[in-house]
Amino acid sequence: MEAPEVDFVSSTMHLHLGGKVRVVPAFPLTTRALLARAYTPGVAEVCRAIVRDPSLVFTHTIKSNSVAVVTDGTAVLGLGNIGPLGAEPVMAGKAMLFGEMGGVNAFPICLDTTDPDEIVRTVKLIAPVFGGINLEDISAPRCFEIEERLDAELDIPVFHDDQHGTAVVVLAALTNALRLTRREWPNLRVVILGAGAAGVACTRTLLATGVRDIVVFDRSGSICRARTNLNHHKRELAETTNPDNFTGSLAAALRNVDVLIGVSGPRLLRREDLLSMAPKAIVLAMANPEPEIFPEQLADTPVRVIGTGRSDYPNQVNNVLAFPGIFRGALDAGATTINAEMKIAAARAIAGCVSDEELESGRIVPDVLDRRVPAAVAGAVADAARRSGVTRAG
Amino acid sequence: MEAPEVDFVSSTMHLHLGGKVRVVPAFPLTTRALLARAYTPGVAEVCRAIVRDPSLVFTHTIKSNSVAVVTDGTAVLGLGNIGPLGAEPVMAGKAMLFGEMGGVNAFPICLDTTDPDEIVRTVKLIAPVFGGINLEDISAPRCFEIEERLDAELDIPVFHDDQHGTAVVVLAALTNALRLTRREWPNLRVVILGAGAAGVACTRTLLATGVRDIVVFDRSGSICRARTNLNHHKRELAETTNPDNFTGSLAAALRNVDVLIGVSGPRLLRREDLLSMAPKAIVLAMANPEPEIFPEQLADTPVRVIGTGRSDYPNQVNNVLAFPGIFRGALDAGATTINAEMKIAAARAIAGCVSDEELESGRIVPDVLDRRVPAAVAGAVADAARRSGVTRAG
Repeated sequence: MEAPEVDFVSSTMHLHLGGKVRVVPAFPLTTRALLARAYTPGVAEVCRAIVRDPSLVFTHTIKSNSVAVVTDGTAVLGLGNIGPLGAEPVMAGKAMLFGEMGGVNAFPICLDTTDPDEIVRTVKLIAPVFGGINLEDISAPRCFEIEERLDAELDIPVFHDDQHGTAVVVLAALTNALRLTRREWPNLRVVILGAGAAGVACTRTLLATGVRDIVVFDRSGSICRARTNLNHHKRELAETTNPDNFTGSLAAALRNVDVLIGVSGPRLLRREDLLSMAPKAIVLAMANPEPEIFPEQLADTPVRVIGTGRSDYPNQVNNVLAFPGIFRGALDAGATTINAEMKIAAARAIAGCVSDEELESGRIVPDVLDRRVPAAVAGAVADAARRSGVTRAG
Repeated sequence: MEAPEVDFVSSTMHLHLGGKVRVVPAFPLTTRALLARAYTPGVAEVCRAIVRDPSLVFTHTIKSNSVAVVTDGTAVLGLGNIGPLGAEPVMAGKAMLFGEMGGVNAFPICLDTTDPDEIVRTVKLIAPVFGGINLEDISAPRCFEIEERLDAELDIPVFHDDQHGTAVVVLAALTNALRLTRREWPNLRVVILGAGAAGVACTRTLLATGVRDIVVFDRSGSICRARTNLNHHKRELAETTNPDNFTGSLAAALRNVDVLIGVSGPRLLRREDLLSMAPKAIVLAMANPEPEIFPEQLADTPVRVIGTGRSDYPNQVNNVLAFPGIFRGALDAGATTINAEMKIAAARAIAGCVSDEELESGRIVPDVLDRRVPAAVAGAVADAARRSGVTRAG
């Protein structure tokens, strides 16, 4: 990416003055009668009622509709380990989108520790006021353990957006790209660039959807059974993907491949690598803020469909299509977790927001500001939660 | 207190549905141009700028204007140790008042632990997004250590409202009650009922203001040098108060006393105990939601001025007069702590909001909904912070 224009940077900095979310009273405290109910003495009645029946915390406190957007700042966008202070603008941006698109009260929590035990413990200790935990930008493989432990130990949904949000929007985008290019899941040849949180989650999701031919690359090359330097989660990928045990270069791996998913870092793809892809190939270059390759570089290549995570190109395959509606639906249903059924329902709902008439190579996903999307996702997710029996009601 | 009316309880419960604060975007995300600045790709410029210059976190993130209202639920109002879930309505009520009266983004944090080490550690770990920490309803003597450690270890203001907020409003109320009854601090005879967080802080503040004759009572009687069952902080009170080493009953202690401050629990004072107080006596019965004695019980006693913490009686001597303006001023000045000078400035500003013409026995403090109060307090506190050199700038 060229250096952004001065005007863009200065207007962006200006927009951030004072921070991007506000905490405001749910109703104005303008009379002593309201004050006597919202504060002393009336508030004591609510405290006593919750002590008698703790389930009231889910209806009569902010837990009913609040999500913590939690990071440790170790894997922020494509910027890497920049710490909790530098991560705040991203977390606040997500919190804004939770509010704007999902009507969810989301508050950024940027933790001043990178120790998984301490992260788990801290999130559990602050959990009483939250109805859900959105983990964000925590580096792999720590993120897997942290999410698994929190989901097991808390009775509210825990969702690592870099894994599951990404997998959901990728599934939605591919669903429509396959509709457009008349492909079927079982015959698809896929390369995934990046074996961090998003890469692992996308791979698992595509395998569950019936894709058989997937090769995943990390910084050291293709993930295959011969590799010895693999953590637990990459070892799982080595066992479940790369059926032909491909060990060559990325460029070689892309020969006749239908789908390339980039969940890695800025500018890691060269135009010439893509020239041997299958006709009408599909590329989702999702690194943020700089994708693996920019759309304007793809003229005169076999690539027919290109998506990025950015707001300034068509096909914004961004998690914002997923997370506001997913948490809205989970909170509405009183879900205690966010399971596979709910994620698949979310992906289908997102894909379904693009009609046959609208579907084209520059429009495989709906606009991220389209209000129909979170509404459709929330409804589908709440239904899936109830049908799969993961709600507090039963 | 009689059982509250059914209508009051049901309307209070109804008002709490969904919780009492909302987290909302600071500006609507209605265009892709705004999205490109508030979220990806623009947000990365702000992250990078903060990494280059961490002081920008105080201007370009929510840290600029956010306070955590932190409790462990061990000393909630007069209800006692009801835990973090039961405490939420009180913390959310404070958060509302922070927003309504101070324009501060305050978020309730109810911790699922009562261990002081763990409370200190957790608050430090979540501190990156907060510009101040308001501790609330944490039982004594743990609250003293927790506040001292956090204030020493964090570079943002830490304020235990039950101590300092109470001391500030008591100082303000007494300043005006003394104006009204033409008394001077040095000659004042004072009894304080309650030796918890608020009792200790009020005692220290009155001693610093020049009061010499104070007797403090806890559940076991007057605090005096002969007592052996005293914690560190009560031992301090034994050394600094009770000059005549009074060891009798509360009723006997109140003979000819000018000021009685109740910071204890519901209905702990009997009307007959007050009959021997000095003429034009002053009683601040501040237990919440039920004061030590109700104003209507004081007819035909020497008590001329009675204040409570409640919204439904005159003279609401409630911390809400102090904390929104104190944090507003501290945040505006970039204060790194809230020192004695700032607290005294706050008390003077509150007292100054009642003019000579307005001052009467039913109006020793301004109305808690009077917007002039937080404005006056904020200005005085910010000035005091700058003059005493506890701001980041200087």
